[in-house]
Amino acid sequence: MGENWLRKPEWFWNPSEGEPDFVHQWVRPLEQGEGEPDLILFGAPISRSSISVSGASLYPQEFRKMWKSYATYNLDEDLDLTPFHVADAGDVAMHTTNISESHKRIQESCAYLSRQYPETALCMIGGDHSTTACAVRGIKETFPEETIGILQLDTHLDVRDPAELGPANGTPIRQLIDGGVVKGDNVYNIGLHGYFNARPLISYAKEKRIRMVTLKQAREKGVPAAVNEAIDRLSEKAGIIYVTVDMDVLDITQAPGVPASTPGGMTTTELFGALMEIGKREEVRYIDFVCLDPTKDSAVSETVKAGVYAWMQFVTGRVMGSGKG
Amino acid sequence: MGENWLRKPEWFWNPSEGEPDFVHQWVRPLEQGEGEPDLILFGAPISRSSISVSGASLYPQEFRKMWKSYATYNLDEDLDLTPFHVADAGDVAMHTTNISESHKRIQESCAYLSRQYPETALCMIGGDHSTTACAVRGIKETFPEETIGILQLDTHLDVRDPAELGPANGTPIRQLIDGGVVKGDNVYNIGLHGYFNARPLISYAKEKRIRMVTLKQAREKGVPAAVNEAIDRLSEKAGIIYVTVDMDVLDITQAPGVPASTPGGMTTTELFGALMEIGKREEVRYIDFVCLDPTKDSAVSETVKAGVYAWMQFVTGRVMGSGKG
Amino acid sequence: MGENWLRKPEWFWNPSEGEPDFVHQWVRPLEQGEGEPDLILFGAPISRSSISVSGASLYPQEFRKMWKSYATYNLDEDLDLTPFHVADAGDVAMHTTNISESHKRIQESCAYLSRQYPETALCMIGGDHSTTACAVRGIKETFPEETIGILQLDTHLDVRDPAELGPANGTPIRQLIDGGVVKGDNVYNIGLHGYFNARPLISYAKEKRIRMVTLKQAREKGVPAAVNEAIDRLSEKAGIIYVTVDMDVLDITQAPGVPASTPGGMTTTELFGALMEIGKREEVRYIDFVCLDPTKDSAVSETVKAGVYAWMQFVTGRVMGSGKG
Amino acid sequence: MGENWLRKPEWFWNPSEGEPDFVHQWVRPLEQGEGEPDLILFGAPISRSSISVSGASLYPQEFRKMWKSYATYNLDEDLDLTPFHVADAGDVAMHTTNISESHKRIQESCAYLSRQYPETALCMIGGDHSTTACAVRGIKETFPEETIGILQLDTHLDVRDPAELGPANGTPIRQLIDGGVVKGDNVYNIGLHGYFNARPLISYAKEKRIRMVTLKQAREKGVPAAVNEAIDRLSEKAGIIYVTVDMDVLDITQAPGVPASTPGGMTTTELFGALMEIGKREEVRYIDFVCLDPTKDSAVSETVKAGVYAWMQFVTGRVMGSGKG
Amino acid sequence: MGENWLRKPEWFWNPSEGEPDFVHQWVRPLEQGEGEPDLILFGAPISRSSISVSGASLYPQEFRKMWKSYATYNLDEDLDLTPFHVADAGDVAMHTTNISESHKRIQESCAYLSRQYPETALCMIGGDHSTTACAVRGIKETFPEETIGILQLDTHLDVRDPAELGPANGTPIRQLIDGGVVKGDNVYNIGLHGYFNARPLISYAKEKRIRMVTLKQAREKGVPAAVNEAIDRLSEKAGIIYVTVDMDVLDITQAPGVPASTPGGMTTTELFGALMEIGKREEVRYIDFVCLDPTKDSAVSETVKAGVYAWMQFVTGRVMGSGKG
Amino acid sequence: MGENWLRKPEWFWNPSEGEPDFVHQWVRPLEQGEGEPDLILFGAPISRSSISVSGASLYPQEFRKMWKSYATYNLDEDLDLTPFHVADAGDVAMHTTNISESHKRIQESCAYLSRQYPETALCMIGGDHSTTACAVRGIKETFPEETIGILQLDTHLDVRDPAELGPANGTPIRQLIDGGVVKGDNVYNIGLHGYFNARPLISYAKEKRIRMVTLKQAREKGVPAAVNEAIDRLSEKAGIIYVTVDMDVLDITQAPGVPASTPGGMTTTELFGALMEIGKREEVRYIDFVCLDPTKDSAVSETVKAGVYAWMQFVTGRVMGSGKG
Repeated sequence: MGENWLRKPEWFWNPSEGEPDFVHQWVRPLEQGEGEPDLILFGAPISRSSISVSGASLYPQEFRKMWKSYATYNLDEDLDLTPFHVADAGDVAMHTTNISESHKRIQESCAYLSRQYPETALCMIGGDHSTTACAVRGIKETFPEETIGILQLDTHLDVRDPAELGPANGTPIRQLIDGGVVKGDNVYNIGLHGYFNARPLISYAKEKRIRMVTLKQAREKGVPAAVNEAIDRLSEKAGIIYVTVDMDVLDITQAPGVPASTPGGMTTTELFGALMEIGKREEVRYIDFVCLDPTKDSAVSETVKAGVYAWMQFVTGRVMGSGKG
Repeated sequence: MGENWLRKPEWFWNPSEGEPDFVHQWVRPLEQGEGEPDLILFGAPISRSSISVSGASLYPQEFRKMWKSYATYNLDEDLDLTPFHVADAGDVAMHTTNISESHKRIQESCAYLSRQYPETALCMIGGDHSTTACAVRGIKETFPEETIGILQLDTHLDVRDPAELGPANGTPIRQLIDGGVVKGDNVYNIGLHGYFNARPLISYAKEKRIRMVTLKQAREKGVPAAVNEAIDRLSEKAGIIYVTVDMDVLDITQAPGVPASTPGGMTTTELFGALMEIGKREEVRYIDFVCLDPTKDSAVSETVKAGVYAWMQFVTGRVMGSGKG
Repeated sequence: MGENWLRKPEWFWNPSEGEPDFVHQWVRPLEQGEGEPDLILFGAPISRSSISVSGASLYPQEFRKMWKSYATYNLDEDLDLTPFHVADAGDVAMHTTNISESHKRIQESCAYLSRQYPETALCMIGGDHSTTACAVRGIKETFPEETIGILQLDTHLDVRDPAELGPANGTPIRQLIDGGVVKGDNVYNIGLHGYFNARPLISYAKEKRIRMVTLKQAREKGVPAAVNEAIDRLSEKAGIIYVTVDMDVLDITQAPGVPASTPGGMTTTELFGALMEIGKREEVRYIDFVCLDPTKDSAVSETVKAGVYAWMQFVTGRVMGSGKG
Repeated sequence: MGENWLRKPEWFWNPSEGEPDFVHQWVRPLEQGEGEPDLILFGAPISRSSISVSGASLYPQEFRKMWKSYATYNLDEDLDLTPFHVADAGDVAMHTTNISESHKRIQESCAYLSRQYPETALCMIGGDHSTTACAVRGIKETFPEETIGILQLDTHLDVRDPAELGPANGTPIRQLIDGGVVKGDNVYNIGLHGYFNARPLISYAKEKRIRMVTLKQAREKGVPAAVNEAIDRLSEKAGIIYVTVDMDVLDITQAPGVPASTPGGMTTTELFGALMEIGKREEVRYIDFVCLDPTKDSAVSETVKAGVYAWMQFVTGRVMGSGKG
Repeated sequence: MGENWLRKPEWFWNPSEGEPDFVHQWVRPLEQGEGEPDLILFGAPISRSSISVSGASLYPQEFRKMWKSYATYNLDEDLDLTPFHVADAGDVAMHTTNISESHKRIQESCAYLSRQYPETALCMIGGDHSTTACAVRGIKETFPEETIGILQLDTHLDVRDPAELGPANGTPIRQLIDGGVVKGDNVYNIGLHGYFNARPLISYAKEKRIRMVTLKQAREKGVPAAVNEAIDRLSEKAGIIYVTVDMDVLDITQAPGVPASTPGGMTTTELFGALMEIGKREEVRYIDFVCLDPTKDSAVSETVKAGVYAWMQFVTGRVMGSGKG
Repeated sequence: MGENWLRKPEWFWNPSEGEPDFVHQWVRPLEQGEGEPDLILFGAPISRSSISVSGASLYPQEFRKMWKSYATYNLDEDLDLTPFHVADAGDVAMHTTNISESHKRIQESCAYLSRQYPETALCMIGGDHSTTACAVRGIKETFPEETIGILQLDTHLDVRDPAELGPANGTPIRQLIDGGVVKGDNVYNIGLHGYFNARPLISYAKEKRIRMVTLKQAREKGVPAAVNEAIDRLSEKAGIIYVTVDMDVLDITQAPGVPASTPGGMTTTELFGALMEIGKREEVRYIDFVCLDPTKDSAVSETVKAGVYAWMQFVTGRVMGSGKG
């Protein structure tokens, strides 16, 4: 159990010598036996489990390419990020056609990392949203006694029925609830809006007492505040808080590269603010970013750029929280 | 008079059996003799009357295709829409090259529907903005004694001179004022801004006492409130209120598929809020959505998606107003 | 065995009344108990078995949409196609995440059709190339005693190892050879060129005596003649000839919507000529068209249009061969 | 009769002083009373008469912009074009919404030019194909006694019924035949192929004895030779030969900016060769280029570039024929 | 010194006769000896000095083309702009490959204009940001005794080291500070945010006491107010205030045509508001707009449209400030 | 003299262990002191010397990325390429803004390589066409006594005047002729056609006796044969033959990613055939590929793919000529 399926990415930036002024110079490959970094990230490059055609499997690769355009200094907070240690564990090796096998490998790799690096924050870069169910199960494997709470930023509930679809990208939250890994009332979903969840799914969510916070409600107090409040509530009940950021929570005009994004969604400003707050909360040790499909992005890669920015905001919060910046 | 030129769309979604969880399962073709639905929609697929090249004639078709992505539940309002009865009357059959004939058919079809279904809300999906003049004339034909007020959400005044251009898309409001169908001071235009109306048009509008509410002014009280206020004023003077939504009122970054949209325009959030308010007002029984050109839309169809969302907001307001949800 | 998983497309053209002057008016849904049509087509909408991200699963749908632009008259041959009876059996219902199950359903549906309609030509619209292995196995199920020969128009050998990849789109020919369904020397591949088959695959092909005809060799006698010659050879040895057209055989400048197409490939003129010859040969009763990904097509849909044209050429040949035109 | 509706383009290249090394320096505005140039061109910027949405009305403008990239020397023929005098008469002023009026203006302008400049070759840049009927009628107005023959390079017959569609772009040849302006057997159509003419149109063409030369037939002798042969035949019967080049005759992969272009069409090499031959024939004094829609062109404007090249080939032939180069 | 390298644009709109209702009818070429206009604009069409590939050299041309869509009336302020006199001095003639020579020409032309028209507001349309250093040096040449203050709206500091890069687009502010033309604490940069300035640049900025106002800080009081405050501070210390608008200050979703724009940037609403305030301040006599690359713009030209709108807002402010509207 | 400015690419594929079945596994970095490889390639990533905006500087990077899709086996020739040793010397380090300095570095690096590896074939990947002049001068530096002949595949003569433009991409052949490095009658240009060379350039070429072979002339005997004949002629007169492939020689429909490509150009089939012949000729030891701008390429990268294919054909010829395959 907990086999490590992580492999190096298929290409690298040529390592430069001087100071790590840009992210690709700062993030280092995770090396065996080097002690615990502050943050480990890894890719879960699968999207053939997506109901619709998706190239989200290519996001980990594009995410790392875009790094090169990001400096290691947060100017808003006047904060140098480089004292914080981020390690890149590579990507989970996927099976070409066996989706269940691929999902198992994500789960095992996540179990492995959470066991080996219990003090380290863990960040998974998807892939489609099916990966979240795998990751959470992997963590549960490592910490079977802990109660897990989920903060989900999403336009959708993702509680479609795996009995019908198998472990597809529309089902992760239901997989976890029906599988007894997480309780419905330990799931907070912020970002719901409009007409993108069919009636039976809403019935399920109500029945399982999923905490639905619409974007309209969150905006009343401010999205960052709403997020903090949700973490407050979760931390009263759960020893482990897992945050899943389905990038389709963003408005379609700001995230054209997320096929399921919609009109009426969250702005990047709101999401960036929320992620810095999330980063500051030491209760949050697991986070993922999913469903960004670089093949659908605009010509100027605005969505991938927003994806990296979002991650940087989480890291900034982390650095601030850790006092390392 | 009032001949019915409406024809079935050229293609259909395969009717599914179960519950109407998505819009394409919920909206039904208008059948003869079935009593009055709550809302009838029909398409006016013409854009060869547009001054610039336009594919807005294709919008009714794309609007119906996109339906399939929209659920019949409004999560913001926790509201099931399905008790409300929406019927699709199809599209007005257009002449290929005779624009006047096509316009006449829109007018007649609108006269027919407003006469046959006097209690039903009527929604026209354009087509370019020339269709509005036809629709209003059709309603006037049915209710010759009524005073008609117009609430126009638009970046432009659309009062160019039909003597010069014929019944083109820049002229509908002037056609109606000069034709004695509507009085200038019964026209409220909300959304005007910037540099998109030439000096002679502004002179005309001032002379005719068109109520120009700039976007800047509307934002001071909030666009939904400004819209409500305009309806209040109109309902004091007019027995019939017609709302025309020129989608070019939206900012160009949110509506790339509307060729005449501009920088500095309304946000989708503002428009969606306004449309729910409009829907709630029972005084409003006629509405159109015009000038959305799907051939210009972005690769992810963000404008068509916003168009359907906008319509859904009107319907949501309607359902709330009717107490049917 | 041989369960019928075929379902109606989700969408259809509004049936018009008059004469079938365009393809969408001519092709009829396959109805139970109507006797044998001249040709049955069905879709196999799967591409999550593709090694790279692919939207080829959407091709059957787009193929049927594009029909509407094609007349039922071949002007080159001065031939009316309408006396020939083409029936549309719909699409095989796919499982969302279980690729093996989906493959089994294609196989069973193909077994069903080939058993129910033994005199009818059968045409499968993919989907990725993994579907070919399923279809051929389904035919073998119906005719276990028959020797099957394959004529493959392809840039690739598609003999990658299923032991490594599972039943992915790079493996169908190897699945069939290693599975004992087809013998290597009963496979003719026409269209190979350039640098798109790695050394181990060529070794395998040589070992199994696959008949590799490079595009350069085929051009020496003309592609249509080369195709006829291959069918001559196959018909000496095989009772059943299955033709698989991987659209990536086309040059990338003529088929941008086939992700695996390459420079140096076949021209549409060559392919169209070959397909008319293939259609004329009554020995050929099974054909598929695979790997066309409409999501990658150019703005003017040139690849989908070429795909329909290619199919029409096969049908034209068929009509000529049958004397029905 | 024959009013001159020609107006200067809205936009022009800053005239440079030196030698006319590029086309925009060489072509001069047509000035009153300057004698007869060798060639006059003018634009007919209408496409709202097109059955499908079309931006072909923008082609005259884009055509003139692209001039700047073309030198005044034909390297293949080692020929300096500048001794030949080309004048630009501007564009016919169109009515915004009255299509009949616009058509009348094209007809009158063409009558005007053909009467004023009887020795000059006249070249119309469309616009959609409806303009051809206007131009030919205008010439007939000037030369009522002459028999007019038409050489049409086209994928379509363009004999749809004006009784049904009005004077739309699918109807010009039928307008002329039914209107008694041209006889069916004086129309040669070269370039027909595939599945793009419905059965009733072919019946009409056969009944009227239109000379249909399929692309396949033309290729047997070479397209330039086929074109020459058609002109030979026409010149036996007709005093005036009008050539209409519907750019949709080109293969879709070479002319993505012509919405009606198809797979299996003519190559640019064939068209360019044919146009040089046409240019050489002094019997041909009238030519048009229609149906190129710059709004659909590829990012690198390959179709507009091909359009200018095609025109240059006609001019080259003209220069060679005139002995002026 | 101060040679005038300005040349007419390579094309122009056909001058219409009537009233100047649109910008292209209103802005006139700068003529020798006509007295001082209220505003002169000129283009600096260079971008080969850009670190990354850039087509910003094409912006002056596209800027003038887009003029035609803008009316000369500001509806928000109910203000007729035409009494204000705007002259177009054309573009600085660039050397094809000698970047230093091109930069010198910009400097000299700017010196020439500022000397010849000391009362006139001067507006440079770039080109990349290297042009700002040239322009400021040119003004310094004319007014060697004056202290120059810079208000920079930018996502970047643009203080990379010219010793390493030469006079590239990342260096202008450093060129001016190190060259003694401007003092660091007379530079206000508003719009900085996120992760787009590497640590050594921030160290340099702090050392030179550049006034860094992050977008977050500016938003606390409102961007227009923050801009006014910066001008207040600058006008206490500097006799000349130069405003440079790097269009990359805009959020990437609103300015896809600015390659260096980023997520988290300024909205067009904020920028438009700021520019009207800037226009009102008579202390500001020099302004530039740089780094907009039309070749990267979206299909609907949203960035070029925003660029013209931004300039119009500055002009509106100017008209209001001058009392001429 | 002859300083080595070559640096590793900024990016590399993760080296895999097994056999070199794909090009990225086969081509090795050039290591000091390893003896002479069969072929060395290096990048000259400059395009700010281009007259028009160009991203050809990015081609070396994209060329290496695309390698991964190419196998090391030529199926047409049934030839394993791996025994042939190809080394990658990296890219010449460019100055950001000093074009002359950058050109000098290319020259020096080319001098260095040609001196250090006199037996090795040298292949430069541009960059724009200005790089050719640098490379040839570098070779001349190493072999001052040798006569150099040039075979140029190009749509243009590239003899614009450096006195006017500096060392821009339109001038390399003239730089070499006027600089006395190469004689005009030792330059063969194959691929000229149409209207893309202005009259003064043709006069210059005739005066200098450049051997102009139009594409039309080359096609009479076949492009590969024409190329062989030119090499025959050159080898009679010159000890060194340098081949420069301006990718704009290709037809625009096959090379949209070459901004200067035109209608009427060479097909990829012709170019690929020619390059294999060139590769076979041991007299040719220097070759470059220039002017491919990946930022202009189509969505499916058809031009970059053609660029790699073209290079592979040269290598194939080389392997055949060397007897190493």
